[in-house]
Amino acid sequence: MSTIERTLALVGDRWTILVLRAAFRGIHRFDDFCADLGIGRPILTARLRKLVAAGLMERVPYQHHPPRYEYRLTPKGTALSPAIVALVRWGDENMSTTPPTTRLVHAPCGTELEQGFWCKTCAVRFGPTAIRGVPDAAQA
Amino acid sequence: MSTIERTLALVGDRWTILVLRAAFRGIHRFDDFCADLGIGRPILTARLRKLVAAGLMERVPYQHHPPRYEYRLTPKGTALSPAIVALVRWGDENMSTTPPTTRLVHAPCGTELEQGFWCKTCAVRFGPTAIRGVPDAAQA
Repeated sequence: MSTIERTLALVGDRWTILVLRAAFRGIHRFDDFCADLGIGRPILTARLRKLVAAGLMERVPYQHHPPRYEYRLTPKGTALSPAIVALVRWGDENMSTTPPTTRLVHAPCGTELEQGFWCKTCAVRFGPTAIRGVPDAAQA
Repeated sequence: MSTIERTLALVGDRWTILVLRAAFRGIHRFDDFCADLGIGRPILTARLRKLVAAGLMERVPYQHHPPRYEYRLTPKGTALSPAIVALVRWGDENMSTTPPTTRLVHAPCGTELEQGFWCKTCAVRFGPTAIRGVPDAAQA
């Protein structure tokens, strides 16, 4: 399988994307995922297992008697957020049959977020037409 | 189907993502897609048809005798670039069995691009922990 096929096999299904999106919003506990997403418990169990096995989430104890665990994004899982947020927003804007009911905003001020590319050398934001692919010198 | 299911049905397959990524890089002609991607002609034909039917690309004549067409991203297709670029980069960094051979850079200066979220009110870049979902007032 190519890299993009492996990536899609891991995160390219509806429930996995919705579980990750809920985790980005700060949801961590099994019952909270169920209530927030309206997802069945067996489906949620399977998706959380897959995400933990792939290293995108980790099980962290939050209570010892009786033992209880919550699910936290790892750095690898958090690194997916620009992709998931962009895909979900594009879908809401372009593929929805009903207007979206939620907007994603910058929490401190409430302004709808924007996405794009950033160059730290030039300190500018830019769009896709200013992207170039170059051979990785480390591999040359 | 939910919105995210419709979105994945349209763009959640390997070749569609690779065709879009090539188009972001400025590839527009059938033979150039074939050469760049090593994609079979029937698969490429099917993917381009799907993308044109969905309004992500459009067929534009570039020669009249004989008639020849190239494939250009529409604004709807271009709007997918943050999602596709983020997904492919995350895969290259986290799911690849071999080091990636290409880096995506800011064309004018060659610095590797960064992605994140931007607030135009505060004029700051921010990460996923500063995102909040709010009910859309227009739908209330």
